[in-house]
Amino acid sequence: MVKAVVLEERDKLSLRDIKVEEKLGRRDVRIGLRNIGICGSDVHYYTHGKIGPFEVRAPMILGHEASGVILEVGADVTELKEGDRVCMEPGIPDPTSRASRLGIYNLDPAVRFWATPPIHGILRPDVIHPADFTFKLPDNVSLKQAAMVEPLATGVHASTKAQIKPGDIAVITGAGTIGFVTLLAARAAGCARVIVSDVDDAKLELAKKLGAAVTVNVRSENLVDVVKRETDGWGVDVAFECSGSQKVAPSLFEAICPGGRVVFIGMPVEPIAYDVTNAAVKEARVEHIFRYAHVFPRCVAMMGSGDVDVTPLITKTFGFEDSIRAFEFATKPPTGSVKVQIEMPS
Amino acid sequence: MVKAVVLEERDKLSLRDIKVEEKLGRRDVRIGLRNIGICGSDVHYYTHGKIGPFEVRAPMILGHEASGVILEVGADVTELKEGDRVCMEPGIPDPTSRASRLGIYNLDPAVRFWATPPIHGILRPDVIHPADFTFKLPDNVSLKQAAMVEPLATGVHASTKAQIKPGDIAVITGAGTIGFVTLLAARAAGCARVIVSDVDDAKLELAKKLGAAVTVNVRSENLVDVVKRETDGWGVDVAFECSGSQKVAPSLFEAICPGGRVVFIGMPVEPIAYDVTNAAVKEARVEHIFRYAHVFPRCVAMMGSGDVDVTPLITKTFGFEDSIRAFEFATKPPTGSVKVQIEMPS
Amino acid sequence: MVKAVVLEERDKLSLRDIKVEEKLGRRDVRIGLRNIGICGSDVHYYTHGKIGPFEVRAPMILGHEASGVILEVGADVTELKEGDRVCMEPGIPDPTSRASRLGIYNLDPAVRFWATPPIHGILRPDVIHPADFTFKLPDNVSLKQAAMVEPLATGVHASTKAQIKPGDIAVITGAGTIGFVTLLAARAAGCARVIVSDVDDAKLELAKKLGAAVTVNVRSENLVDVVKRETDGWGVDVAFECSGSQKVAPSLFEAICPGGRVVFIGMPVEPIAYDVTNAAVKEARVEHIFRYAHVFPRCVAMMGSGDVDVTPLITKTFGFEDSIRAFEFATKPPTGSVKVQIEMPS
Amino acid sequence: MVKAVVLEERDKLSLRDIKVEEKLGRRDVRIGLRNIGICGSDVHYYTHGKIGPFEVRAPMILGHEASGVILEVGADVTELKEGDRVCMEPGIPDPTSRASRLGIYNLDPAVRFWATPPIHGILRPDVIHPADFTFKLPDNVSLKQAAMVEPLATGVHASTKAQIKPGDIAVITGAGTIGFVTLLAARAAGCARVIVSDVDDAKLELAKKLGAAVTVNVRSENLVDVVKRETDGWGVDVAFECSGSQKVAPSLFEAICPGGRVVFIGMPVEPIAYDVTNAAVKEARVEHIFRYAHVFPRCVAMMGSGDVDVTPLITKTFGFEDSIRAFEFATKPPTGSVKVQIEMPS
Repeated sequence: MVKAVVLEERDKLSLRDIKVEEKLGRRDVRIGLRNIGICGSDVHYYTHGKIGPFEVRAPMILGHEASGVILEVGADVTELKEGDRVCMEPGIPDPTSRASRLGIYNLDPAVRFWATPPIHGILRPDVIHPADFTFKLPDNVSLKQAAMVEPLATGVHASTKAQIKPGDIAVITGAGTIGFVTLLAARAAGCARVIVSDVDDAKLELAKKLGAAVTVNVRSENLVDVVKRETDGWGVDVAFECSGSQKVAPSLFEAICPGGRVVFIGMPVEPIAYDVTNAAVKEARVEHIFRYAHVFPRCVAMMGSGDVDVTPLITKTFGFEDSIRAFEFATKPPTGSVKVQIEMPS
Repeated sequence: MVKAVVLEERDKLSLRDIKVEEKLGRRDVRIGLRNIGICGSDVHYYTHGKIGPFEVRAPMILGHEASGVILEVGADVTELKEGDRVCMEPGIPDPTSRASRLGIYNLDPAVRFWATPPIHGILRPDVIHPADFTFKLPDNVSLKQAAMVEPLATGVHASTKAQIKPGDIAVITGAGTIGFVTLLAARAAGCARVIVSDVDDAKLELAKKLGAAVTVNVRSENLVDVVKRETDGWGVDVAFECSGSQKVAPSLFEAICPGGRVVFIGMPVEPIAYDVTNAAVKEARVEHIFRYAHVFPRCVAMMGSGDVDVTPLITKTFGFEDSIRAFEFATKPPTGSVKVQIEMPS
Repeated sequence: MVKAVVLEERDKLSLRDIKVEEKLGRRDVRIGLRNIGICGSDVHYYTHGKIGPFEVRAPMILGHEASGVILEVGADVTELKEGDRVCMEPGIPDPTSRASRLGIYNLDPAVRFWATPPIHGILRPDVIHPADFTFKLPDNVSLKQAAMVEPLATGVHASTKAQIKPGDIAVITGAGTIGFVTLLAARAAGCARVIVSDVDDAKLELAKKLGAAVTVNVRSENLVDVVKRETDGWGVDVAFECSGSQKVAPSLFEAICPGGRVVFIGMPVEPIAYDVTNAAVKEARVEHIFRYAHVFPRCVAMMGSGDVDVTPLITKTFGFEDSIRAFEFATKPPTGSVKVQIEMPS
Repeated sequence: MVKAVVLEERDKLSLRDIKVEEKLGRRDVRIGLRNIGICGSDVHYYTHGKIGPFEVRAPMILGHEASGVILEVGADVTELKEGDRVCMEPGIPDPTSRASRLGIYNLDPAVRFWATPPIHGILRPDVIHPADFTFKLPDNVSLKQAAMVEPLATGVHASTKAQIKPGDIAVITGAGTIGFVTLLAARAAGCARVIVSDVDDAKLELAKKLGAAVTVNVRSENLVDVVKRETDGWGVDVAFECSGSQKVAPSLFEAICPGGRVVFIGMPVEPIAYDVTNAAVKEARVEHIFRYAHVFPRCVAMMGSGDVDVTPLITKTFGFEDSIRAFEFATKPPTGSVKVQIEMPS
């Protein structure tokens, strides 16, 4: 029995003892959890009980953005040792699946992902995890920062897919957590200038601090007009759609340059109205991402080198005993709030 | 004054004398036209008087799919000579535009394209054209075949964008001229198996003759079901959308494999309903094409090597004097008709 | 105990009983061998006892190019069944290695490859192999042809790395087995014209039959001169080096066009003299391959579609009882000989 | 007649009046020169009278790394105006050449490049240049910095060719001007960690200041050993060869990871010993660069955003009247010297 943050059912969260059975395999490690971020998906399971086809049918521990410390290593693990500070990739694929063999393990339908029903998350004292998906931290990356690797990975994966060339100019639509980590990743990946749009001035101000060259509040300015002005009418090299809004997509093909790229990161609930002709006259390349693959060690290196500083994104940290309050805060966040973390007792 | 097929205005076509002023530049050639294909766009200008923003406001010579014979060469042309059999790329970009400098001259907004208002087409005895966009034919490629290079170029450009790997499996939706040239191009570009869908059994039969492994009449079979069956449930590597139908697009993301690509070639008039989540779970890459760039010499080589045989696509040939009848035929084509050509007196 | 072709030590080959211990895992199949090609590496182990760091220190069964029939399937295998005709990828990687996770399992140093010491090959009645590396044949691909999938895979992998665009022009230097399969693969992958060079007219004649547009006997003609003549001075898009000769490499950068690619397939024993300046003025991209990854199912599809016909490459077939004679033949092959196969009794 | 730095012949430099005839075309601008860097090639022409096939046969003005101010614009130039601060790309290609049409104008053999015989350079008061190759500076980029765009362009072009992914680890061999600009470019392009090797501790110290994570003096440490240690034995993603040394190349294939890339920037005078087998077991991709294309506006943006700071590379600035002394200084530079500039009177 371990004490954990358990989603009993929709709208009902407990901090209580629960039985979790896990066995340390030869290539596994046991990790003591330290910092855990609350993700929008955690909140969504809490408030809706499901995301798409994934439905909470039995009590499930929440949490998948985590850092920790190695407590024990399996017999065949040599690259990690007790006491190592680490972060963990929350999805474990079947290494022999067709997708995994191709190197796109994130697209393996059999992937087991923390806090995606029926798999338990990690808002609990410890967890057993494959060493291959556990990454040692350099000394200058804190456990707080390391719990941000998971969201950052989305931005880095999107930036990789975008095939950014040094000196590119980009647009990011939507200044939420995903928009911010995409901004950090795109800047580190070579974008010289990034234009960020949103409807919230507080978020746009934070975007400026994080490296946006230009911000656009789309309540008062037209994004395409700003893009044209900032690029001498040519358009941006890359557009990252992070708002998930159905209205935004149509403007992206007007914002990009001939031969430009659009990366969809936000996922609108309903199909969007997509103008093939607008995309055709630009010969747009459109990329989609699903979580991430192979980017955790890259994120750790980017934090360690100082190329990416996620600290301004961590709005507030709660103790483990205050986990329920942390979720309440995250469910109805004050203006300007980005990421809420829970810190385990060490 | 030259005799030409002139679109006077919507619905009104004449075979009459018209004045065309052209001057042979140092890097130009004068070409005697031989075979000219009638394109869907020629027919559309005839029946509607416009395509999107391009409107016929003054009498315009139609035709842009052409082969011919060199009659005269400019002072600085050494690679072509009188008597050479050639085909011609119908769009002439500004070589110093930003898009042209980047090598994507097809996206140059200043491109001058035959039979796109207000630029005259080539249903006339001769034309002056830059040598750089005029391509010599090998002996084993006929002038009839060479007039098919222009539509074939679309298929080859789409296949290039798709980054086909040898042994790929593809779907092509829509068995019209563009579907057929995409089939020929995709097979030559390395697709081992191509599944073609349409609603017309005669077209599907022709697809089989041109190298389709499997055909699907979507009136009686579900395309995604067939794809799953033919690929052990994995999906195809590439989907080429050639129907221009708004209903087809949503099925493409279900038809492709994880990491698959979708190339939009057909251009639906209205925006399509595009499900970002469906595309995301596959991490689909979506490509768009606008005409073509750099592929005419490739098409000529592929015809010369025998890798592509366009002959079965040429349904009927009319003499120049019968041009009006040719357009009537092309406007209301009989079942199974693909490409209509007009042949100039030699 | 099974009867097998055993390399006892350098220069000493036996057809004798040997003990092989293998156990059918849940995702394994047991395959009855049918056709087995003799590879240059088999011959090299026979005549030299080693290849680079791989030395034969104990009796080892030879053979790794194989087709067969499924005899038994493991508990979790659903995609294959008894009686299925198959071909097999001879290298089994560790699926959890870093290289495998990235999708480049051929670069996993822990790969276990048939007939690479100390791993036994498959010149024996049956073998146990993972289902994931066993590929079902379509009805129209014979077991004889299927035993050519392994060498063909090298050509297909090289063609994939070359990122061939439809209509490319290529040079292949060296008309041995690898040159021929690269020719077949490059043509199927979209190369419209291939120029093949060698010193043996009989091999060059076969190259013509297999689809070479031009052949060059470098004893009497200069390859670069021919390339310039055939490409109007521009150069070829891709050069595939298949001779393994140290002298050939320097000419490749003169043969390619600006922005062209060079793929090294042959492996010269000593370092080659590589002129960086020659490569720089073309901005050459140079690719290297090591065996292959992910291409066996592609090869099977390409054989099934008729895009690739390997039959002309199979020079002679020996019965299993004549295996020693087969190796003697392969060791001192007559002019024009390409691939020697051994056929198991069915 | 204009006063210019004229290389009369090998070893003989004058600051004297010379006649230069240039005419302002409709798409040209006239630029007053401001800061001009002395390049290794300028020094080499001075001390050797030639570089490869390019020989100084008549008095030639030196200099090609330049910033300036617009003095006059041609009739069709709208994007620049008198007084604009600019930098200039020194090579002017024929926009209609085959290479230019493909977008690889740097590979056009007809390119006219400043201070490459017989084309005059720009160590003179003004020059006429195409607007398309003249780039406006943002307010926060100084004319001193802007004269560094030309060398930086090489590093940015190399980084683009390397297809850096965010979080990559790189090695740069050779800490001269090109090594330094490649370091700046690689870091800005997403490399999280860069290991720089040289034989000069002063240069390595500067490399640290410019963002190198690790430096290696190859007199005392083995580069491959350091790489293995810093990458847990895996190897670096990219190796940039900037030393031009024939001895360095062989180690690069040991330094990279499986699937890694090697970019040759330095050009050894003699062919290097290149081990194909070493490159093959890694499936290395090798890239070469020749000057640069399309990167000047990117460099300007990267300077403007603060992503790249070239200031520490400018060792010393001489007035125009001291140009001969500047060349003497650059020919025999003191330890730690990187870039020498000449400043025109404004």
